[in-house]
Amino acid sequence: MHRTKVTVVEEALDANNTIATANRADFDRDGVKVVNFMSAPGAGKTTLLERVVGELPGVRVGVLEGDVQGSLDADRLASLHVPVTQLNTDPSFGGECHLDANMVRSAIPSLPLDQIDLLIVENVGNLVCPAEFRIGEDARVMVCAVTEGEDKPLKYPLMFRTCELVLVNKIDLLPHLEFDLDRLLYNIDQVHPDVETILLSGRTGEGVGAWREWLSGIATREEAIA
Amino acid sequence: MHRTKVTVVEEALDANNTIATANRADFDRDGVKVVNFMSAPGAGKTTLLERVVGELPGVRVGVLEGDVQGSLDADRLASLHVPVTQLNTDPSFGGECHLDANMVRSAIPSLPLDQIDLLIVENVGNLVCPAEFRIGEDARVMVCAVTEGEDKPLKYPLMFRTCELVLVNKIDLLPHLEFDLDRLLYNIDQVHPDVETILLSGRTGEGVGAWREWLSGIATREEAIA
Repeated sequence: MHRTKVTVVEEALDANNTIATANRADFDRDGVKVVNFMSAPGAGKTTLLERVVGELPGVRVGVLEGDVQGSLDADRLASLHVPVTQLNTDPSFGGECHLDANMVRSAIPSLPLDQIDLLIVENVGNLVCPAEFRIGEDARVMVCAVTEGEDKPLKYPLMFRTCELVLVNKIDLLPHLEFDLDRLLYNIDQVHPDVETILLSGRTGEGVGAWREWLSGIATREEAIA
Repeated sequence: MHRTKVTVVEEALDANNTIATANRADFDRDGVKVVNFMSAPGAGKTTLLERVVGELPGVRVGVLEGDVQGSLDADRLASLHVPVTQLNTDPSFGGECHLDANMVRSAIPSLPLDQIDLLIVENVGNLVCPAEFRIGEDARVMVCAVTEGEDKPLKYPLMFRTCELVLVNKIDLLPHLEFDLDRLLYNIDQVHPDVETILLSGRTGEGVGAWREWLSGIATREEAIA
């Protein structure tokens, strides 16, 4: 039983990678760079997008919003006058806990790829499965809020290991928490040595400039890393 | 394709329910009540268990710890001198993002069911899939931290709808957040009218007494509701 299950998982991931490659080709055709943006629920992804998507000089940004249900985040971002496309993962019952390459593929006809330079895909809030499914992205970014505790890299290592940038968010709350920031950074380094990190606060704006610069760099990067 | 997928999901959930019923029979045989304890990553489940498991007069508690990897939470709880069993969901690659009835079944031989009255199953941190899989529990409890924002009930409705108690945690941080507690409670009521809620802080201990009393009530409850 165990072996059977593992084989099924591997085949599903093979199929996903095939479709992710097809997505990649479509993005490349229009010269669009893609960021897969992930975190636990409530870590602050949408706020961190609100802070930057309208303020990247010379970079036309689009957003693909992945949610189990509803369009709350898409509605928030629409006021920023960038193209936002909603993708719901709930065809029945509880819904999917992640985006996969095929779900993103189904949204491609709705994306204005010829009018944008950078597509940010806000994944479903979850630290496990989103890390397992490539969608055809150039880069993966995750948000880890200091309110979540220092142990998250050790409990969800694949997520931290497969991202090239970790945004450590809600640092404005540090004075009010029993939280050891050095320990979090040490734990991140344990599972992904030398990964880039930016300390910031979506609420106060501290550190948001570095996040904006990083995104601008991705949009103009010559070669895909991921 | 769509129809095929839905059928596969339904069959998987049917199989899960069959195994959950078998788990339930095993728990009943030893008179053990079971709580399925769920939340997003970092909402404070383990801290809220540390606050109560050793302090329920007349109730012998055991804990089953579900994690993708590692035994950090089990190690924390072991110091409280209650039996703790670790269940890892990571046979390969990224691991499973939830516990299902079969995983819990595999742990039953390791559980001291004849020596406990109440088993608390700490599920994997995730607001989507854990809500879809019954494990043979008497009751479902979720933790929603105020740091996660007011919109979580609307974005993850199945989780809120299938719990009979919502613990609203980290209320000690309310003075430092732009957070509308009334709106959160309104949103919870929208997806699950009249569900019981307890406002508390794992850090300061405020409200923990009500949480302790609720658990004591479950342990001595005559009839299973879930």
